[in-house]
Amino acid sequence: MARRNDHTREEIQHMAIQAAITILSREGVQGLSTRKVAAAIGYTVGTLYLVFKNLDELILHVNAATLDELYRAMQAALAKHADPRLQLFAMAQAYLNYARGHFARWSLMFIHHLPADVLLPTWFHDKFRTLLVLVAGPLRQINPSLEPQAYQQATQVLWSSVHGVCELGLNDKLSLAGEIRAEDLIHALVQNYLKGFTQGWD
Amino acid sequence: MARRNDHTREEIQHMAIQAAITILSREGVQGLSTRKVAAAIGYTVGTLYLVFKNLDELILHVNAATLDELYRAMQAALAKHADPRLQLFAMAQAYLNYARGHFARWSLMFIHHLPADVLLPTWFHDKFRTLLVLVAGPLRQINPSLEPQAYQQATQVLWSSVHGVCELGLNDKLSLAGEIRAEDLIHALVQNYLKGFTQGWD
Repeated sequence: MARRNDHTREEIQHMAIQAAITILSREGVQGLSTRKVAAAIGYTVGTLYLVFKNLDELILHVNAATLDELYRAMQAALAKHADPRLQLFAMAQAYLNYARGHFARWSLMFIHHLPADVLLPTWFHDKFRTLLVLVAGPLRQINPSLEPQAYQQATQVLWSSVHGVCELGLNDKLSLAGEIRAEDLIHALVQNYLKGFTQGWD
Repeated sequence: MARRNDHTREEIQHMAIQAAITILSREGVQGLSTRKVAAAIGYTVGTLYLVFKNLDELILHVNAATLDELYRAMQAALAKHADPRLQLFAMAQAYLNYARGHFARWSLMFIHHLPADVLLPTWFHDKFRTLLVLVAGPLRQINPSLEPQAYQQATQVLWSSVHGVCELGLNDKLSLAGEIRAEDLIHALVQNYLKGFTQGWD
């Protein structure tokens, strides 16, 4: 068992986050525990609790790393296109691909809730907002004459509806009603939504 | 403790499903166990296992009861309107209202997975399809000239995207990005989607 002063506090945090990510990819959300993370980095659970207040705080940092990766995947998809519609199609597919490729980590972002008396830290909010700004940009280009509030709403609608198709598709709940690929549903969703969005709001 | 022959097999099944529903509404998905269901109906866990193979089978029946209720709520929403667009708006809001009012049961339908080697029974598939047919009807009225496959896809897209807004909205994941009511997002989603859908497919 390594002693605490073999690594700095920041190094232990980083090692724990990476270990949690590995455990999630191998064993899914149910498999994650402070005991397993501590064992994987060669420290005691007690040391882990010196660098993270509890499992919730560790998960928050794992989710932050997931948001960063998701941002980079969507940013790369956006950068491949100049047309704002194609940018939105590409980002929606990138979201699906990321969710499929990192299913446990992606699920954990939505399953995990902090205790009711703990507020999400500002830096986490900011990461989330940065991701939504990626989606708002092309929407603004497509239909530049709306109120700022309308882009925020459109971003939330588009994001959460793409999310819904990913969730039901990847959880195999859509195959209940016939075999259709999640990619096709995402494409049809964004296509129809944008046709409506381009016409403006009633 | 009641003896097994105080009630018929069907009575015990029915009592167990109702008890599970009560436990879900009080304690959420995490609170459900065969031990608690057995205690609530005054039978041993052993007797419970005589009428349901395992907790999975009990949950399947709870989910079936949830699908029945959801169907009735959406059917009632549809019946209030003659215009197919208004029918779809009303059903989407009814879906949100049901999810909000029965959050644990609604979540359980999507969280729960049968073991990989167990197929969903046909009667469960049929309940699910009946619900999707409710949504397909108005879509067909709005745009009657499409291929049958297109209605199936549009139904899955619309349902899963409404589902996504409900999930993120009710799990308080959308408030991360500013205060917008789930009702408004659902309305905007269906509105934009239908504008695109009315124009047909590329």
